[in-house]
Amino acid sequence: MRVYLAGPEVFLADRDDIAAAKKAICAEHGMVGVFPTDPAPQVPPAETNWMQIYLGNEAHIHGCDALIANLTPFRGASADPGTAYELGFMRALGRPVLGYSNAAGNFTTRSLGLLRGAVHRRASGAWEDADGMEVEDFGLTDNLMLDGGIAASGGVLVVNPIAEAARWRDLNAFTRCVAHLAAMKR
Amino acid sequence: MRVYLAGPEVFLADRDDIAAAKKAICAEHGMVGVFPTDPAPQVPPAETNWMQIYLGNEAHIHGCDALIANLTPFRGASADPGTAYELGFMRALGRPVLGYSNAAGNFTTRSLGLLRGAVHRRASGAWEDADGMEVEDFGLTDNLMLDGGIAASGGVLVVNPIAEAARWRDLNAFTRCVAHLAAMKR
Repeated sequence: MRVYLAGPEVFLADRDDIAAAKKAICAEHGMVGVFPTDPAPQVPPAETNWMQIYLGNEAHIHGCDALIANLTPFRGASADPGTAYELGFMRALGRPVLGYSNAAGNFTTRSLGLLRGAVHRRASGAWEDADGMEVEDFGLTDNLMLDGGIAASGGVLVVNPIAEAARWRDLNAFTRCVAHLAAMKR
Repeated sequence: MRVYLAGPEVFLADRDDIAAAKKAICAEHGMVGVFPTDPAPQVPPAETNWMQIYLGNEAHIHGCDALIANLTPFRGASADPGTAYELGFMRALGRPVLGYSNAAGNFTTRSLGLLRGAVHRRASGAWEDADGMEVEDFGLTDNLMLDGGIAASGGVLVVNPIAEAARWRDLNAFTRCVAHLAAMKR
């Protein structure tokens, strides 16, 4: 089984080390991990570097049997939007999607924290921000579409709060996702 | 043609008015707009309200021929993560995806603005934030996966900066997406 390793680690300077560590954990469970920056499968030549990266990632996802997403909040209350995009993409292909977050709290508490009191209650009791946007309050890890896609596919969303200094490199929650995926496939 | 109307307007108190306005624009172009909060198609009963919403949105997307996403940045430098998820989902189905943003700037300039100087240059010249995460610098509207999916599908990403007070309700960029979609289908 090939597993696409989605997440914002692609933005880290030591991403190759993280890719190798994730692939080693996959291998221990009899799987092949595919990192976004791996040499891309054959794709049509694109006019720009970014489009070549995009088409490579699409081809990687098509060539994998499942996806594990690092949904640790990225510069805000939510996961990296590219990772959210890839999660939806793989779910639409009907294959298992799993996720993990190394941050504490849920989407509601993190959103309210970042809004720093610039919220008020509607008559319904719901919180809304200064733009008049409701703060989703289902007690989920992220926007309900992300949690929902994982649940609908039979996956798992592991939350394992880690101190900030180690948040982007701790792989315990990731390992639990790999083990869950291995058990799903038995 | 049925068009799924993705975007964070679902969080606004007057979302029904916005849904009606978007649907009217679709109708003028011979299309049927489908808003996330429309009565859901038949889906299996879920144990929770949020899962029922999720499954309804999935069914809506499956039942549409194209998607137009409001990618105006939502509480940060990027689009709402639920919208990013839906964009990826529809792209994976191989149907046209289009998007618009009513905010100025690109992903790089917005990210650097929100990071408020807590960045430094790598030896390569790339910006990275305090977590060591590179700031994507392709001059795109959002994370390259979002821009890439739209381009790969033959869609268009319309950027039309609007003053903050009207940002969530101005439909000029949306209308341009509808017109583009109508032209694609001729």
